[in-house]
Amino acid sequence: MSNADWPDFSKNELLPAIAQDAETGDVLMMAWMNEEAFNETLATGRVVYFSRSRQKLWRKGEESGNVQMVREIRVDCDGDAIVLSVDQHGGAACHTGKRSCFFNKLDKKGFCDDGVNVFDPKEVYSK
Amino acid sequence: MSNADWPDFSKNELLPAIAQDAETGDVLMMAWMNEEAFNETLATGRVVYFSRSRQKLWRKGEESGNVQMVREIRVDCDGDAIVLSVDQHGGAACHTGKRSCFFNKLDKKGFCDDGVNVFDPKEVYSK
Repeated sequence: MSNADWPDFSKNELLPAIAQDAETGDVLMMAWMNEEAFNETLATGRVVYFSRSRQKLWRKGEESGNVQMVREIRVDCDGDAIVLSVDQHGGAACHTGKRSCFFNKLDKKGFCDDGVNVFDPKEVYSK
Repeated sequence: MSNADWPDFSKNELLPAIAQDAETGDVLMMAWMNEEAFNETLATGRVVYFSRSRQKLWRKGEESGNVQMVREIRVDCDGDAIVLSVDQHGGAACHTGKRSCFFNKLDKKGFCDDGVNVFDPKEVYSK
């Protein structure tokens, strides 16, 4: 099994890619990779996704500076999902300025925000 | 924000659902949920996915007995991805009999299997 044919982009051009904080194990975000994004991630050690909304490569952190550096890459049994263990620079993965995108936690009253604010998106993205 | 309109199944009928071991934080698997699967998961506390290959609800563990019981449910900033913290009964999430589906780890030689075998799929699925 070589890198060239694994993960398997033949059935789906975009595969789900899950970024997990290498220190805490928290799931920080879930985005998508095409083969080009995966290969650039491998080549540079810096996580690159494919933005479905912008339809182009998304070099995570290119605007905010909050890049993700790869510690480990795993692919699942079917070869169609990716887990990245990452060092999250700046301490925040989410465009809202929170540490993780998964800050909506279900409790008895519904979903509540228990996210940790790291930066103010108005300051970071208006630059 | 109510459970009824969150997560957001309006743009995508199937949302990625990531199961994370409640004890270790390991990502065990990534599958898909439609609204019916999500609602049944909420109602029963037992994880139900939607199988894309079989095009029907997939009550995880219905054959192997390795059900996943929900400890926590999180939804991301866009409302289109789900993280489930689960108690993995039987200690194995993968149909291969391994603990996690993400047993293909990239090293310098390519992807290698560092999975932990928990059961023999020939014994479990031939019953």
